[in-house]
Amino acid sequence: MTSGSQFLSPNFPAGPNGLLPAIAQDHLSGRVLMMAWMNQAAFDETIRTGQACYFSRSRNAMWRKGETSGHRQRVVRIQLDCDADCILVHVEQIGAACHEGYESCFFRTVHADLSISIDEPRLVDPADVYGH
Amino acid sequence: MTSGSQFLSPNFPAGPNGLLPAIAQDHLSGRVLMMAWMNQAAFDETIRTGQACYFSRSRNAMWRKGETSGHRQRVVRIQLDCDADCILVHVEQIGAACHEGYESCFFRTVHADLSISIDEPRLVDPADVYGH
Repeated sequence: MTSGSQFLSPNFPAGPNGLLPAIAQDHLSGRVLMMAWMNQAAFDETIRTGQACYFSRSRNAMWRKGETSGHRQRVVRIQLDCDADCILVHVEQIGAACHEGYESCFFRTVHADLSISIDEPRLVDPADVYGH
Repeated sequence: MTSGSQFLSPNFPAGPNGLLPAIAQDHLSGRVLMMAWMNQAAFDETIRTGQACYFSRSRNAMWRKGETSGHRQRVVRIQLDCDADCILVHVEQIGAACHEGYESCFFRTVHADLSISIDEPRLVDPADVYGH
């Protein structure tokens, strides 16, 4: 099944930032931790360093995950989807993936009546991590 | 931890299609199956019918997953991320999620030298499913 001599790059779109969606998943539990964006430079840095690096649309800058919080993501495996326009990063998450202090950014469940619930505790207090 | 009386809608952006990324994950194995897009109408239909419905950017139309292939996704749980701008759908996948016949669209691994490998067989032959 393995065809190791093939090469394939993500299809980063043209445009100022050339972003593709990137999903981070816990490499052991399979839990989806967050979804962010990568451009070519962030992807290249992720491959080169083995630490997840995204591109922050709000800050318009490279986002070395965990640079402020210490909650880094060590990359275990990178996968591309069939259209090479989405990146899946299997990571070992240090601390909490979410800036709100939860293990995963997906800490809320939407029910059929559109009510939501939060079914897990925070791992950390954001004020302790970000000082605000 | 549960706060069932809260309501929260995804932050669909303004604009012609108002799309947010949506991730489908196998509800048992945790495998990420695909990433697609939803607008408000697709989200509402997904909630109402319990079957995953996306918005196809290439066809510019609602995409009732499995309508052609039969490879539907029964929705088990829907989650929203911290910014309410990404939707995670836990599904029971019928057949193959990927139009190339693989269980997941993420059937390719990118290695450190940027080579790629495919480490799993197709579940189905796309020609049998889509007739082309």
